[in-house]
Amino acid sequence: MDFGFFLPTKILFGRGKISEAGFYAKELGKRALIVTGKSSAKKTGSFEKLTKSLEDHGIEWILFDKVKYNPLTTDIDEGGVFARENKVDLVIGLGGGTAMDTAKGIAFAALNSGPMADYMEGKSGEKALPIILIPTTAGTGSEANNIAVMTNPNTMAKKGFRSPAIFAKVSIVDPELMDSLPPKIAASTGIDAFFHALESYISLRSNPLTESISLKAMELICENIKKAVYEPDKESRDKMAVASTLAGISLGQAGVCALHAMEHPLSSFFDVHHGEGLAPLARAFLNFVKPHAIEKLSKVADVMKINTAGFTEEQKAKEAINAIVEMINDLGLPNSISSFGVKKEDIQKLTSNVKNYMAHNLSATPGELTFEDIVRIYEESL
Amino acid sequence: MDFGFFLPTKILFGRGKISEAGFYAKELGKRALIVTGKSSAKKTGSFEKLTKSLEDHGIEWILFDKVKYNPLTTDIDEGGVFARENKVDLVIGLGGGTAMDTAKGIAFAALNSGPMADYMEGKSGEKALPIILIPTTAGTGSEANNIAVMTNPNTMAKKGFRSPAIFAKVSIVDPELMDSLPPKIAASTGIDAFFHALESYISLRSNPLTESISLKAMELICENIKKAVYEPDKESRDKMAVASTLAGISLGQAGVCALHAMEHPLSSFFDVHHGEGLAPLARAFLNFVKPHAIEKLSKVADVMKINTAGFTEEQKAKEAINAIVEMINDLGLPNSISSFGVKKEDIQKLTSNVKNYMAHNLSATPGELTFEDIVRIYEESL
Repeated sequence: MDFGFFLPTKILFGRGKISEAGFYAKELGKRALIVTGKSSAKKTGSFEKLTKSLEDHGIEWILFDKVKYNPLTTDIDEGGVFARENKVDLVIGLGGGTAMDTAKGIAFAALNSGPMADYMEGKSGEKALPIILIPTTAGTGSEANNIAVMTNPNTMAKKGFRSPAIFAKVSIVDPELMDSLPPKIAASTGIDAFFHALESYISLRSNPLTESISLKAMELICENIKKAVYEPDKESRDKMAVASTLAGISLGQAGVCALHAMEHPLSSFFDVHHGEGLAPLARAFLNFVKPHAIEKLSKVADVMKINTAGFTEEQKAKEAINAIVEMINDLGLPNSISSFGVKKEDIQKLTSNVKNYMAHNLSATPGELTFEDIVRIYEESL
Repeated sequence: MDFGFFLPTKILFGRGKISEAGFYAKELGKRALIVTGKSSAKKTGSFEKLTKSLEDHGIEWILFDKVKYNPLTTDIDEGGVFARENKVDLVIGLGGGTAMDTAKGIAFAALNSGPMADYMEGKSGEKALPIILIPTTAGTGSEANNIAVMTNPNTMAKKGFRSPAIFAKVSIVDPELMDSLPPKIAASTGIDAFFHALESYISLRSNPLTESISLKAMELICENIKKAVYEPDKESRDKMAVASTLAGISLGQAGVCALHAMEHPLSSFFDVHHGEGLAPLARAFLNFVKPHAIEKLSKVADVMKINTAGFTEEQKAKEAINAIVEMINDLGLPNSISSFGVKKEDIQKLTSNVKNYMAHNLSATPGELTFEDIVRIYEESL
């Protein structure tokens, strides 16, 4: 056993906590760039709550609301220039994964010259502006790790940029901001959190600390996701919010596997919502890893509270996979990648993209996936 | 649900990792104070491994080996003066909980004037020299939190000093350093780790994140402690080491309860080894909290792998308590506080000490312990 664990972010969880944003911002800077989407944070009142707290504490702020779903490295470059021009000394990401990842990217780009695409390819840069993250969905867990996912428009590589510099100084997880999440978003972001937990759990880079966190996240999600989507109440929202943060921690420390790797080109080529893209790939992916992760998948059956008295580990693993597929169906998530417009002839291109750009995730996956294995998983998901 | 989580320590786990100490020290300072005990780290070779790594990386070092079991605040004051006089810019704690806690205290005392006892009583101080911690026992988990336990000789209050400044920058958990732990120390430190996990789990300040970590720590300890004590091999040592760190994380975030609170005056008045002091109090303490923590104690039965098919939660909780007491007996730990020389007439004094100095731990305990409850638990443990 050989591992490291590093999570220097101060995580604050609780309803109404966004009102403390200004207090923490004041310890980090004087002039903040708020990175958020065009409309949702404004419509729901989250944006106003944030700016009020900043103003109460005498923090100036500038808005960058050009956050796009599946952000490009060139969008980040643009944000970096904007941050420098406006002389901000702090970046606050408010929104879902894209807003938070864009905020992380901009905080980095502001202090490192040259295109972000170069840093994605390994150019080193150590500094970033201090970051505060405030999620408004229970899904990406970006508030709890140092990964920012973005796409290089030249190569169409969508992958995670990692740097110790982009851990948030403070993350405020306030489930109140998620109370108005539409069911479709609650489902797609919730299933994303579930697979962060599951993939980090079976990851070859997991350790006892991340495994315990991943299992707890899965337990909370399985107990609460349907309620949070169809009949949301405070308790189910709270538990999905905490589960998402837990899964984000494990994802950051232990990584995710081939399921995430295989979803990324769906997002970049077909502009699919990430959580929706994971859903139809799950069954074939899980069937592939099952023989290599039987013991762990059998424990997933336990946290899903499946009655498996007298079952072998293999039977438990099988039941866990069935229950996951059933959960996806119950949430009304897509069950075929054809629904995104993917055709059989696209699969070579998708597979090449995975093999070329997602080696890190593939190497964390139990079982050694060949090119042909990936093709088969896509084909079975058509 | 309302909680915070903050653990800015870089934790490195693995056999042989102590050889990287110099690499990390170099990022933090040039001249290190090594805080360790009189003999054991030297006898086992840990001290030599550490100094070699420091020298390989050009770090000067000075030795402070006056670490005492159950350190006094005045010992810390002395260490702080020594650190200042020797112009060190980094403190490295190598040893069990006392060495690590002494190192944390000295790092703080070096940069804050006036007696440590004042800071224990609430005087504020924000700075400390950077700290590296290297445990040589699997017990205290001090490497994973910002608590340093020490005793004020004027009041005999033994309690934890907390400051964000005394989180280690880097903690190196190298199970190789624990390979020569004598059985008695493996048992008493291991049971301490177990109760960090159990008490932080049932603590009223727990949250889903710490709960998952506490449960994993208990699971690992119950599976490995007997082997680690009686027939130690690498696997059982490794798992006890990781469990101890996990329990140390939960302890730091969620706190411990009245069991730890009631042990502290045993240590300060009767110079008992902390782990040995916990053992005889466990049964009466657990019977007291049972009605207030039935659901959680029933889950302890699950991680202890007790066959409880068809049992109610209450029956499961009872079985968990029985199994814990059996584990303590199997490890040859004391089963009565009389064995430390405690007499019935001492109990008022012990109870007053708990009530006066351990309010923080008492308020984390399920059920509201009165003075009489504490007396009764001590009496039942005689």
